[in-house]
Amino acid sequence: MLLNNETIDNLGIKDYRIIQKKEGFRFGVDAVLLGNFAEIKKGDKVIDLCSGTGIVPFIIAGKRDIEKVIGLEIQEELVEMARRSSSLNSLNGKVEFIKGDLKNLKLLEEMGKFNAVTVNPPYKEADSSLLSLNEKERIARFEIECSLDDVIKACKILLKDNGKLFMVHRPERMADIFETLRKYKIEPKRVRFVHPDIHKAPNIILIEAQNYGGKFLKILPPLYVYENGEYSKEINKIYGRE
Amino acid sequence: MLLNNETIDNLGIKDYRIIQKKEGFRFGVDAVLLGNFAEIKKGDKVIDLCSGTGIVPFIIAGKRDIEKVIGLEIQEELVEMARRSSSLNSLNGKVEFIKGDLKNLKLLEEMGKFNAVTVNPPYKEADSSLLSLNEKERIARFEIECSLDDVIKACKILLKDNGKLFMVHRPERMADIFETLRKYKIEPKRVRFVHPDIHKAPNIILIEAQNYGGKFLKILPPLYVYENGEYSKEINKIYGRE
Repeated sequence: MLLNNETIDNLGIKDYRIIQKKEGFRFGVDAVLLGNFAEIKKGDKVIDLCSGTGIVPFIIAGKRDIEKVIGLEIQEELVEMARRSSSLNSLNGKVEFIKGDLKNLKLLEEMGKFNAVTVNPPYKEADSSLLSLNEKERIARFEIECSLDDVIKACKILLKDNGKLFMVHRPERMADIFETLRKYKIEPKRVRFVHPDIHKAPNIILIEAQNYGGKFLKILPPLYVYENGEYSKEINKIYGRE
Repeated sequence: MLLNNETIDNLGIKDYRIIQKKEGFRFGVDAVLLGNFAEIKKGDKVIDLCSGTGIVPFIIAGKRDIEKVIGLEIQEELVEMARRSSSLNSLNGKVEFIKGDLKNLKLLEEMGKFNAVTVNPPYKEADSSLLSLNEKERIARFEIECSLDDVIKACKILLKDNGKLFMVHRPERMADIFETLRKYKIEPKRVRFVHPDIHKAPNIILIEAQNYGGKFLKILPPLYVYENGEYSKEINKIYGRE
């Protein structure tokens, strides 16, 4: 069940466990925040793009009353690992993983329409420096296999009319994200900034956008990771440490 | 010097005083924050649009080593009042006010090019409810005389290449602002959110954008008006209450 270079970690939600690589590809705070930010309604069909270890689908399956959540991931090795996590938690049939490229528009069209799409895409434009990472990390972190435009185009195909997109990204890409969303008539509706501490600039942005949504953007109160030198109450709650 | 329905208020900067209406048109925290946010360099030529009482030009003249700052305002009565404030502070020749419509492109072209433009425009789209206000307030607060597009088009005409635009606005218009800035090839570069308190959503956005600027958006640490039940240090400093 577990390969040599893997670990099993407890998610802190319904005792779910998730398999990760010891080194290299492990899920981060971004994905955890995205899984918690996504307001998924009862019975929703959900798809998570750039799914990696499957962390976002497992959080959604643990916290929301969904029908099914699918994780799409381009790297075969990660898909196989995420499937083993699904078996480990007896979630086969509820949390499924598909190996595929989100630029494969035919594949997307065959998958049908979803109430919600979540995505924790590569953050950095491909022209940034990227030589220090191994290939798997490069694919996960940089816009090599898919650009921001590719990601949002895929969301457009997968979303029902009025379906919701939940994305985590870097604040410095905000103008690019808004521009690309509007290009595909997906309107940004809610934004939440995540700050390492109350006097620090945000380093994570959580965005909810709605397919063919009307114009009105709500900026939510900030989410602080630390407050007065300790983890904030909200972070402790998210990590199941209440 | 002072009309019946006017007051003289001390700005807290170099003992400058500013004339305001007792009721109706008085400057607000938005304009004060904009005047402080605008990083004006020594010797810069600056123009403030939608200048109202002239508050932003007076703050800039008081805090920065500028050559000249011009305030453009469409309402004759406010221009005349701001000119009296300029005389009151012996700033004639350094702080000047012009009555004019920022939609008058010929007027703008005749004014030449500026290193920086500041603007505290009307915030609300004209289709919002606006019947409860008097005419002067309606013009100042709603996009009646000028839309967001008109404002940014005016900035484009007035800015030198690489000149900077400093704007205060409402966070919920952020996507519209970014879209319109990029339409005119003015790139958003720095954003600061102003929050009433540390756990509240921001209600003011300060934006710096650069004419033909390269893509890179920096989100600054938040500015809180209150912290732990008292005015924050930064707000006290801005209001000269150190």
